[in-house]
Amino acid sequence: MLKDTVRTKTYQNVIYQNSFLFKNKVVLDVGAGTGILSLFCAKAGAKHVYAVECSLMADMAKEIVEANGFSNVITVLKGKVEEIALPVAHVDIIISEWMGYFLLFENMLNTVLYARDKWLLKDGIVLPDKASLYLTAIEDAEYKDDKIEFWNSVYGFDMSCIKKQAMVEPLVDTVDQNQIVTNCQLLKTMDISKMTPGDASFTAPFKLVAERNDYIHALVAYFDVSFTKCHKLMGFSTGPRSKATHWKQTVLYLEDVLTICEGEALVGSMTVEPNKKNPRDVEIMLKYTLNGRHCQVSRTQHYKMR
Amino acid sequence: MLKDTVRTKTYQNVIYQNSFLFKNKVVLDVGAGTGILSLFCAKAGAKHVYAVECSLMADMAKEIVEANGFSNVITVLKGKVEEIALPVAHVDIIISEWMGYFLLFENMLNTVLYARDKWLLKDGIVLPDKASLYLTAIEDAEYKDDKIEFWNSVYGFDMSCIKKQAMVEPLVDTVDQNQIVTNCQLLKTMDISKMTPGDASFTAPFKLVAERNDYIHALVAYFDVSFTKCHKLMGFSTGPRSKATHWKQTVLYLEDVLTICEGEALVGSMTVEPNKKNPRDVEIMLKYTLNGRHCQVSRTQHYKMR
Repeated sequence: MLKDTVRTKTYQNVIYQNSFLFKNKVVLDVGAGTGILSLFCAKAGAKHVYAVECSLMADMAKEIVEANGFSNVITVLKGKVEEIALPVAHVDIIISEWMGYFLLFENMLNTVLYARDKWLLKDGIVLPDKASLYLTAIEDAEYKDDKIEFWNSVYGFDMSCIKKQAMVEPLVDTVDQNQIVTNCQLLKTMDISKMTPGDASFTAPFKLVAERNDYIHALVAYFDVSFTKCHKLMGFSTGPRSKATHWKQTVLYLEDVLTICEGEALVGSMTVEPNKKNPRDVEIMLKYTLNGRHCQVSRTQHYKMR
Repeated sequence: MLKDTVRTKTYQNVIYQNSFLFKNKVVLDVGAGTGILSLFCAKAGAKHVYAVECSLMADMAKEIVEANGFSNVITVLKGKVEEIALPVAHVDIIISEWMGYFLLFENMLNTVLYARDKWLLKDGIVLPDKASLYLTAIEDAEYKDDKIEFWNSVYGFDMSCIKKQAMVEPLVDTVDQNQIVTNCQLLKTMDISKMTPGDASFTAPFKLVAERNDYIHALVAYFDVSFTKCHKLMGFSTGPRSKATHWKQTVLYLEDVLTICEGEALVGSMTVEPNKKNPRDVEIMLKYTLNGRHCQVSRTQHYKMR
C-alpha cells in the first residue's frame, strides 16, 4: 500500500505543505498501519500523535516510531478505536486512510465517524474531509468475454452457473481511459466532517450520455477524495483518466451489450448500502434504461461486493 | 485457476490421451473445485467419479455436473475427504491437483495420501504420481531493491524492521530465465504412490555452479509434476524456463549479495518442514557457503511461508 505513490504522496504533500495546520496540534491517526501518516504529522510539527492500529502491524509501527526518533511525539495504541482508552479527552485533527475499493467496500469510515464524534474538538478537522463517488460507462468486449463469457464453455464444459455468480461480483480492475464511452457522472459526495454512518447508504440518479457510437458492456465506478482545509484544494482521483492507484476502478458488467449512438443517454439510478449481515460488504442495485435507435433496454441488476 | 492453461491442459491431455486408464474405472477426485477433472475423467469413459470438495464450490460443481449431463457418472460429495463416507469400498484411480506454491505451501498432499491409504486398490494409480522440487540462483538487483531495500527509507523514514520480516517471507513471483546464474539442481523427488506424510519433511544438499560472472541475490525454488503411468511420460514444470503457471516461482532472498565467478559453486543444503503449529505453513532453512575469488560467505537463513 505504501507503494501506491498517488495515495501516500498526496497525504505527504497535504501534511508537509500545510504544516500550519499541524503545528502544536494533537492528532489521531485512525488505522495507522506502519504509522507513515503519523510520522508525516510528527515531522510537520504536531504536538502529539496517537496512532491507533488494531492489527499486528501496531508492533511494527512502535518499532518504526522508535527507530525514527519520534517516541516522544507519537504514541502507538494497539487496539480497536471503539475500545481503546485515548490518553487525552480531545484531538484537534483526525487523519485516516479509510477508503476501500468502490470507496465503501471493507472501509473504516464508520470508525472515523465514531472517533470524530467521541474526540474531535468542535473546530477540529478531519483529513480527508470530502469523498465523492462517480459513474461512467465503458466498452469492454474483450475482457467481458475473458472474465464472464469464459464460463459458457470451459474446456468444452458448460459452467454458466459460475458466470451468474461472476456477474453479481463487481470486478476491481484497471480500466483504460479509451474504453470510456460516456460522460462521467457524480453520484454522491460525502462530507466526512458532518455525515452520519447512514449517509453511506443512498440512491443516486445518473444520466450517461454517449460521446461516440459504441457498445456499452459495463458501468464503472470510482471515487476521489479531497482535503478542503488545505491552503489550496488538494486530493486525488481513482478514476480511469488519473494515475493508477491500488484501488483501481470497480467494473459492474451489464447483462446486455448496449448499442448506443452518440448523444443518446443511458439513464437510471444506483442504490448503495451495506449488507445487513456483514456491514463491511456492499450491496449495489443498478436500474438503467436506454431508449436508443438500435437498442431499447430497461433492467435492474443486483451486485454484491464481498 | 482454470485459466492456468499449463495446469488444466496437462490434466486434460493426460486424461483424454490415456482414456485406456479410465475406461470402466472408479475414480476419486480429491479437492474437485469446479469438478473440471471429474468431467474430464467422465468424458474419458470412467465408470464412476466421486468428486470430493469441502468448500461452497461443491454446490457449483453439482450444478455443473448436471448442466453437462454427467449426473449418472459423477457424484459430488461436499465435505472433507477425512470425514466423508465414500459409497464404495475401493477406487481404481485417485486424481488430484493438490500442489501449492513451493509445491508444499497450503497443499492437499496429506489428504491425497490419506485417501490413497484408505480407498486405493493395491494396483490402483495416483495421478500425478511424481513431484520434484528444484533450486537455482538468480541475479535480481532491481527487484531486491524494490521489494526488500525499499524498507530502508520509506518516504524518508527507516522501516528496516519490516525489511527483516520481508526477508523471512519467500516471495511468490515470476522470474525471468535470463536472471538464472547457475545450473538448476534437483532437491527432492516424491513418489505420491508410495510416500508417507513424513517424506514431505527433508534436508537436501545442493551445489549451484555459476555459468557466468554475475551477482546472486536470491535462490529460486520451483517444482514439476509427472504422470508416469501414461502411455508416455507426461507432466509440466513450473520453472522459469517453462511457460508461466499460477504457481510462478518461489524466491528466497539472501542476506548478502554474492559476487560469483563462472565455475565457482554455491554449496549448501535446504531443509523443508511443515510448521508445527500450522502444518499448512512451511518452514525453510537454507545453509550456504561460497568460497569464491571475490566473495567468501557462509550463512544460515530461515524462511517461513505463511
